[in-house]
Amino acid sequence: MSDSRPLVWLPFDPAELGEPPAGLRYEVVVPGDGEPVPSSVSEVEFFVPPYRFRAGDSELIAEMPRLRVVQTMTAGVEHVASHVPDGVTLCNGRGIHDASTAELAVGLVLASLRGIPGFVRAQDRGAWEPVTATSLADRSVMILGYGAVGAAIERRLDGFEVDLVRVARTARPAGDGTPAVHGFDELEDLLPAVDVVVVIVPLTEQTRGLVDRDFLARMRQGALLVNVARGPVVDTDALLDALREGRVHAALDVTDPEPLPEDHPLWRAPNLMVSPHVGGASTAMEPRAYRLVREQLERFAAGQPLENVMAGEY
Amino acid sequence: MSDSRPLVWLPFDPAELGEPPAGLRYEVVVPGDGEPVPSSVSEVEFFVPPYRFRAGDSELIAEMPRLRVVQTMTAGVEHVASHVPDGVTLCNGRGIHDASTAELAVGLVLASLRGIPGFVRAQDRGAWEPVTATSLADRSVMILGYGAVGAAIERRLDGFEVDLVRVARTARPAGDGTPAVHGFDELEDLLPAVDVVVVIVPLTEQTRGLVDRDFLARMRQGALLVNVARGPVVDTDALLDALREGRVHAALDVTDPEPLPEDHPLWRAPNLMVSPHVGGASTAMEPRAYRLVREQLERFAAGQPLENVMAGEY
Repeated sequence: MSDSRPLVWLPFDPAELGEPPAGLRYEVVVPGDGEPVPSSVSEVEFFVPPYRFRAGDSELIAEMPRLRVVQTMTAGVEHVASHVPDGVTLCNGRGIHDASTAELAVGLVLASLRGIPGFVRAQDRGAWEPVTATSLADRSVMILGYGAVGAAIERRLDGFEVDLVRVARTARPAGDGTPAVHGFDELEDLLPAVDVVVVIVPLTEQTRGLVDRDFLARMRQGALLVNVARGPVVDTDALLDALREGRVHAALDVTDPEPLPEDHPLWRAPNLMVSPHVGGASTAMEPRAYRLVREQLERFAAGQPLENVMAGEY
Repeated sequence: MSDSRPLVWLPFDPAELGEPPAGLRYEVVVPGDGEPVPSSVSEVEFFVPPYRFRAGDSELIAEMPRLRVVQTMTAGVEHVASHVPDGVTLCNGRGIHDASTAELAVGLVLASLRGIPGFVRAQDRGAWEPVTATSLADRSVMILGYGAVGAAIERRLDGFEVDLVRVARTARPAGDGTPAVHGFDELEDLLPAVDVVVVIVPLTEQTRGLVDRDFLARMRQGALLVNVARGPVVDTDALLDALREGRVHAALDVTDPEPLPEDHPLWRAPNLMVSPHVGGASTAMEPRAYRLVREQLERFAAGQPLENVMAGEY
């Protein structure tokens, strides 16, 4: 007797979902782990590829004639997008990394301003070397890229006695409980007035190289640039010059190129902290991924519209 | 013609106060800088000793027959207290360092959890070594010592998706807009349930050695201890053992002894970050000190009661 409940392929134990919605069948399948493809592939209707899904694994999708939804656990979908046939809904993992990335952004700001890298190096030398640091309190902080992660950064900065300047591609006036957001076209005037710039724009043709020589030259002397977006948003050569001239400080969780090769000059640039693209790499991810998948499955089971649907160009 | 307005000795330019209250006379005097004591010492009614006032400088107070108020810019007043005669009001600098200390506390929590010391050391080796860290999100955080700085830490943790556990000497039930606070006597039961303990109690006979072997043994495996209070609140030998056994992680802005001598084993203990007592050492201090002094002078000029009055044992 065949089971007509829609089949869901998950890369993790459905028990992680707490109470997964009834009315669906669940099977744990992790493509690309060398196991043969289960024969149930022809029945899959809802497919959650694993976090570390590789481009080559996407051919599996062609073997899923009944497929209706692909739900990734990543914000980017470039590894599966071109393999998703017309008529199948592709949903991304937007939101899964917001908490993790936002807290790393604030951590990099605090570590840079309060001189934590210098204390780590002094500790290794057994040297007690207090310095008077720049506080985050009383600083003016620009969130450049005021989307979901930008708002998550704002919530975390809320108690730090800072002035916030919000910038997005398009300006928006203050509205019903939402603050005013400036547009990219106002950057020229805004940059000289802020102490810290946290970059969290998506990488697009418009934002590639957004932080260039001119941008850096407009920043305040000694101001701090924090990049938790994507490496190519910042012009690496221009930043290297500004760091070496002592014009700005920086903390980069993302770089261009990435990973940084051992002999790259960024490693040895002054006034710079580098973390190896770990914004999303924390224990905050899994519970938020499970929550998103459960909510999507509940919508799917109830025949409701899904969230995070990718449409058009991506 | 003599000027009968009360004389105020300030260790900084009165222009730093913005509009200092009228009706008072101001003179900039920094005792202990080797200059002879100005003859106006006999007229001083309101004395603000400099931040780095030394115990020996206190004899100056005996030369101030008209003295009515001593306003320090430090929370501790041990360097002047015994020299302040009966009938003179002694006010401390409580609050000046709250913002600075609270933000360092959050900075140490984030740096420790997210692995920033490891990234600094990897950067010095030119090594790109991502790790999946423990997020602050979803953690249970105890603020041990729920006074003004504890509340300032709470405001800063507010957006980080944490559960807060507040502990003070005496338990207080939740009240009109104020959260419930647990008492020290509940620590035994509370410690096994938290991931991070931020210590910000005053150093008293009750809190000396509060974080001892038993306290550390009750902490969760792998939990993080952050001390931004005073070194002797933590039993250094007990902590060294717990760190070496991999039982807990720690970040210390204060140590016992302090400063740490070059050969002290804390420098080389695993799972530990040390910063050299810089909680208050930031640019946040001066504007808050000026604000406090101005407000106190306004009260003094208006004949109103002063804030931060030290009375009884201190």
